[in-house]
Amino acid sequence: MLAEELNRVVVVLVRARNPNNIGAVARAMHDFGFRHLRIVNDYAVPFETARSAVDASEVLATAKTFATVADAVADCALVVGTTAVGERALQHPLHTLPEAADLIQAELAHEDHASRIALLLGSEKTGLSNEELSHCNWLLTIPMHEYEGARHPSMNLGQAAAVCLYELVRQSAHPAVVSVGPAAEAGERERLTSLLTEVLHEIGYTDRHPANCGEEQIRRLVVRMGISAGDAPVWMGILRQVLWRLRAGAK
Amino acid sequence: MLAEELNRVVVVLVRARNPNNIGAVARAMHDFGFRHLRIVNDYAVPFETARSAVDASEVLATAKTFATVADAVADCALVVGTTAVGERALQHPLHTLPEAADLIQAELAHEDHASRIALLLGSEKTGLSNEELSHCNWLLTIPMHEYEGARHPSMNLGQAAAVCLYELVRQSAHPAVVSVGPAAEAGERERLTSLLTEVLHEIGYTDRHPANCGEEQIRRLVVRMGISAGDAPVWMGILRQVLWRLRAGAK
Repeated sequence: MLAEELNRVVVVLVRARNPNNIGAVARAMHDFGFRHLRIVNDYAVPFETARSAVDASEVLATAKTFATVADAVADCALVVGTTAVGERALQHPLHTLPEAADLIQAELAHEDHASRIALLLGSEKTGLSNEELSHCNWLLTIPMHEYEGARHPSMNLGQAAAVCLYELVRQSAHPAVVSVGPAAEAGERERLTSLLTEVLHEIGYTDRHPANCGEEQIRRLVVRMGISAGDAPVWMGILRQVLWRLRAGAK
Repeated sequence: MLAEELNRVVVVLVRARNPNNIGAVARAMHDFGFRHLRIVNDYAVPFETARSAVDASEVLATAKTFATVADAVADCALVVGTTAVGERALQHPLHTLPEAADLIQAELAHEDHASRIALLLGSEKTGLSNEELSHCNWLLTIPMHEYEGARHPSMNLGQAAAVCLYELVRQSAHPAVVSVGPAAEAGERERLTSLLTEVLHEIGYTDRHPANCGEEQIRRLVVRMGISAGDAPVWMGILRQVLWRLRAGAK
């Protein structure tokens, strides 16, 4: 996600009670590059006790407080509420998180829109009230496991925020770079196959397990190792020294 | 994700210090339908104080504790470590979480495999050590925001677990393909590592190339073989017979 797009997303925490959860939401925002936190509470939030907010001090320092949801989302073109399904009769379109992320991405992709998008998260105990939901264009829900005969699970606030924000950046994430390195070339695998064949002869394995020791069987065994260019000389060195010792011992 | 697949995934918490985080991981497991939590710690974990574990009591009640990573993953065919990029020079293939979920789904999609898959999460402060990483087939990283001139952000343990487990169930609609057949279990790879270590001693390789022969180096060499369940006994047989011959010759 581009810096400009990250800047257009606003996370709105409504009636969050636990300062640790506020800190956890701020930390998740920092982790995924989001900056704008808004807090709706009818009492002063004790930010300074948001202890779990490692790394999130800038998000918390610039967080804005509002008295009502209406004020908090006033400059947002799209307002998305989060809900656990089944909690109540829903009056809104509902999308699973992956679908919701597509819709939010589509909104952000309009270069001509400088408008903000709000993601509302409700209180730990009750989620968003019907009045609060009424400010939303539509709702998203994180797909969770259905336990037969049990009430629907609900996520911890900091974890729910982390999952939602991850999904928003997920689509634009860079592919990982590091790997074990290039595979060994076939010629190297072939030399390894020859060496291993010599070892198998030397130890008598070929006589005991002839069905395993055809040329093709041994080559396939080596190919299945999926050996890297870096590891090939290591295995060659080991096999050469095994051979040398076997022959030295036999004299 | 099917119930049978959810049952094959094992979450392994290594040296988690904060009972609240253990509780948060258990809660995320419950939310997404995972059951098997294993805990590696060198001291008794105070489960009863895992206060944030609303909904997670069954996961915590059935959690198993282990003294070592090797013991905790012994019955797992695929061992995946989690890491924040840039922490250290990586010796393993690294995949972003979405790619990693594809690979794990592909492993789970083999109906004939009853094998388990372990997801390792390290301590809050230091993540997984190099020794702990050496038990892993490959690593996954959650893509996070890059802050210019600042250290890489690291996620809270409970939030990281929630994001990983969400991604695993998110993908269940789209299983990927690939693979050579069931992988050997980590316990078998560990026995192979021991045997190879004995051979390297016996042939004098350990003395000539001490830098290649630390326990972790040898384990990584074996893990990188990507050995299948079918090939593991073949390699064990070869190494045992090499050893027997070397020792017979030395007499």
